Amino acid sequence: MKEIYEIAVVHGDGIGPEVCSAAVEVVKAALGNGSPLNFREYPAGAEHFLKTGESFPEPTFDACRSSDAILHGAGGIPGVVHPDGTEAGLDFTLRLRFELDLYANIRPIRLFEGVTCPLAGVKAGEIDYIILRENSEGLYAARGAGVQLRGELSVDTLVQTRVGVERIVRKAFELARASNGAPKDGVKRVTCCDKANVLRSYAFFRAVFDEVAPDYPDIEVEHVLIDAMTMHLVLRPGHFNVIVTENMFGDIISDLGAATIGGMGLAPSAELGERNGFFQAAHGSAPDIAGKGIANPYGTVLSAAAMLDWLGSKYADSRLSDAAANIRAATNKALAEGCLSADLKGNWKSADITRRLCDQLAAMR
Amino acid sequence: MKEIYEIAVVHGDGIGPEVCSAAVEVVKAALGNGSPLNFREYPAGAEHFLKTGESFPEPTFDACRSSDAILHGAGGIPGVVHPDGTEAGLDFTLRLRFELDLYANIRPIRLFEGVTCPLAGVKAGEIDYIILRENSEGLYAARGAGVQLRGELSVDTLVQTRVGVERIVRKAFELARASNGAPKDGVKRVTCCDKANVLRSYAFFRAVFDEVAPDYPDIEVEHVLIDAMTMHLVLRPGHFNVIVTENMFGDIISDLGAATIGGMGLAPSAELGERNGFFQAAHGSAPDIAGKGIANPYGTVLSAAAMLDWLGSKYADSRLSDAAANIRAATNKALAEGCLSADLKGNWKSADITRRLCDQLAAMR
Ligand SMILES: CC(C)[C@H](C(=O)O)[C@@H](O)C(=O)O
Ligand SMILES: CC(C)[C@H](C(=O)O)[C@@H](O)C(=O)O
Repeated sequence: MKEIYEIAVVHGDGIGPEVCSAAVEVVKAALGNGSPLNFREYPAGAEHFLKTGESFPEPTFDACRSSDAILHGAGGIPGVVHPDGTEAGLDFTLRLRFELDLYANIRPIRLFEGVTCPLAGVKAGEIDYIILRENSEGLYAARGAGVQLRGELSVDTLVQTRVGVERIVRKAFELARASNGAPKDGVKRVTCCDKANVLRSYAFFRAVFDEVAPDYPDIEVEHVLIDAMTMHLVLRPGHFNVIVTENMFGDIISDLGAATIGGMGLAPSAELGERNGFFQAAHGSAPDIAGKGIANPYGTVLSAAAMLDWLGSKYADSRLSDAAANIRAATNKALAEGCLSADLKGNWKSADITRRLCDQLAAMR
Repeated sequence: MKEIYEIAVVHGDGIGPEVCSAAVEVVKAALGNGSPLNFREYPAGAEHFLKTGESFPEPTFDACRSSDAILHGAGGIPGVVHPDGTEAGLDFTLRLRFELDLYANIRPIRLFEGVTCPLAGVKAGEIDYIILRENSEGLYAARGAGVQLRGELSVDTLVQTRVGVERIVRKAFELARASNGAPKDGVKRVTCCDKANVLRSYAFFRAVFDEVAPDYPDIEVEHVLIDAMTMHLVLRPGHFNVIVTENMFGDIISDLGAATIGGMGLAPSAELGERNGFFQAAHGSAPDIAGKGIANPYGTVLSAAAMLDWLGSKYADSRLSDAAANIRAATNKALAEGCLSADLKGNWKSADITRRLCDQLAAMR
């Protein structure tokens, strides 16, 4: 337990500031007076890059590194790019992942009551799994380091290490142990998702998985190829409990998972290293709806709850864990009662959803 | 027009022989007596590897290369692997793609009448797009050539070339021109699917796309990131007409697309080079249901129809084009009438579906 937890807040681009402010308000409401959290804002992102030529200022990086946790809205504006064509607004997220070694990207996919599932006949409670994305290796590790020759050829490199695969696989088994199992059968299960049939690197990922698995005899294991996985997530999502996969595959299936629960707006994300924790919704900056007050704040709110949970258990601080539980309860309730933003086919404004959550949290304290 | 078309037939593994024989029967029924097709069977695959130590014998390769078209069931048995962990049964497909330079993998995704869509409220006709998968570059080009060091590290390489990207992008625009446009709005549209925001190679893919696009001013263009694409294919599949993407992304979203039309069993595939054409369903060898007589033959039947279409237009042979049209009509009819295999929640055996198709085709001649 600490007296003060320093939270580095970066609003970012597009709807980032709206959803990030909403999440901060909700956390404050959950903790009430005497909250031990100290929120401090720092600049980064595509807007900042346009203004200053810097996408991720060093002072922001230092503040993030030394903070107790990092909360982010969303980054990136299409077209605001580096000379190689990649987006400047993503430097914040990507540098943090690699330089703070935030290797475990935890992305829960849960269908909420009150939200219409785009999959026919699937009901709340029937989708409830975690995508555990390896966040520190793979093709992403080559970002900025690929070769381009005379505009004729472009090369990027996919790297996986034993150390990197082993730690993410162990994390997957631990998450499964701590979970309630898959919704369909209650079985605690880790699914290794790869493309081992075609590529050596993925066969390596699977081989390390298979070596580690016997250390967790209480957890069921299986292999599913990435292509088949997209099918299973649509046709039998209730089967899954924890899915562990490499970086790019995790990026891809976490959006797919989010689609099956009604869209990106409800999918939180926690990116964890040994020391640092980074929290932002899985969605992007949605510049098309920025400033309209209609962004869906739930993803960032739930990411902030994950932050409280992580800090609460790291520092054995039940004030934080309780606040996290309350935020989740308030979110469940608000969604079930139909407080839905435009992306969920409702007409609630961001500010009204935020107020509703804060009111409920005040009543819970 | 040729007097005889030599078709190299490779049954492969699992359900491969069942679905492949079914497709040959159906093609024969469509062409009737005096068919100009000469089917010749050759061995390859995981079973053959287990028996002989060779997954893809040279005589089979020579026959495939010199044939007019190649028809395949499916390849691969999990666990039958090379020393690096990749599957031996896939050598057939993967060597053909690379050694015959079959760069264009055309995968139509169409929701059929009579098949229940797993997406809520989506009806036949509302999903009808083509995934055009680049089939000769990307990570797949590194297959067998990755580095593994002391079991501590594994590296694979993603390569894209201007020549490779340009030809697949042009193909996409030509397919869009020849199409009816997207089901939702009838707009002819090519969607470039990449991950240009993060990786140089994908930014390169997009840059080449953007260079080529102005040559087709009649076609609408757009960019969608691969992660977001998985969401759109679930939430608004009716928007798409032709999607062009690199090899691995194409692999992934073609299974997803298939899931949204009821499963892999209905998804055909054509892999085309300048000289050769290779036809097989998009599904795998499904060893778990092999030999039970319940495999879904439609995917391979529709791939065989694509073969007839391709040969028919290449050699201006209307006998073949007509047969292709008839096979598609018979398939539509059979599905609409409820001739559904187990994977489609029906109880029709493969043989009964095949007989039904053959009877209808005989009546059409
Ligand atoms: C914003 C971008 C860098 C990021 C990624 O590609 O990882 C995003 O899509 C995500 O899923 O976190
Ligand atoms: C069988 C395998 C080599 C193949 C691939 O990965 O390309 C398959 O999944 C496909 O989609 O054609």
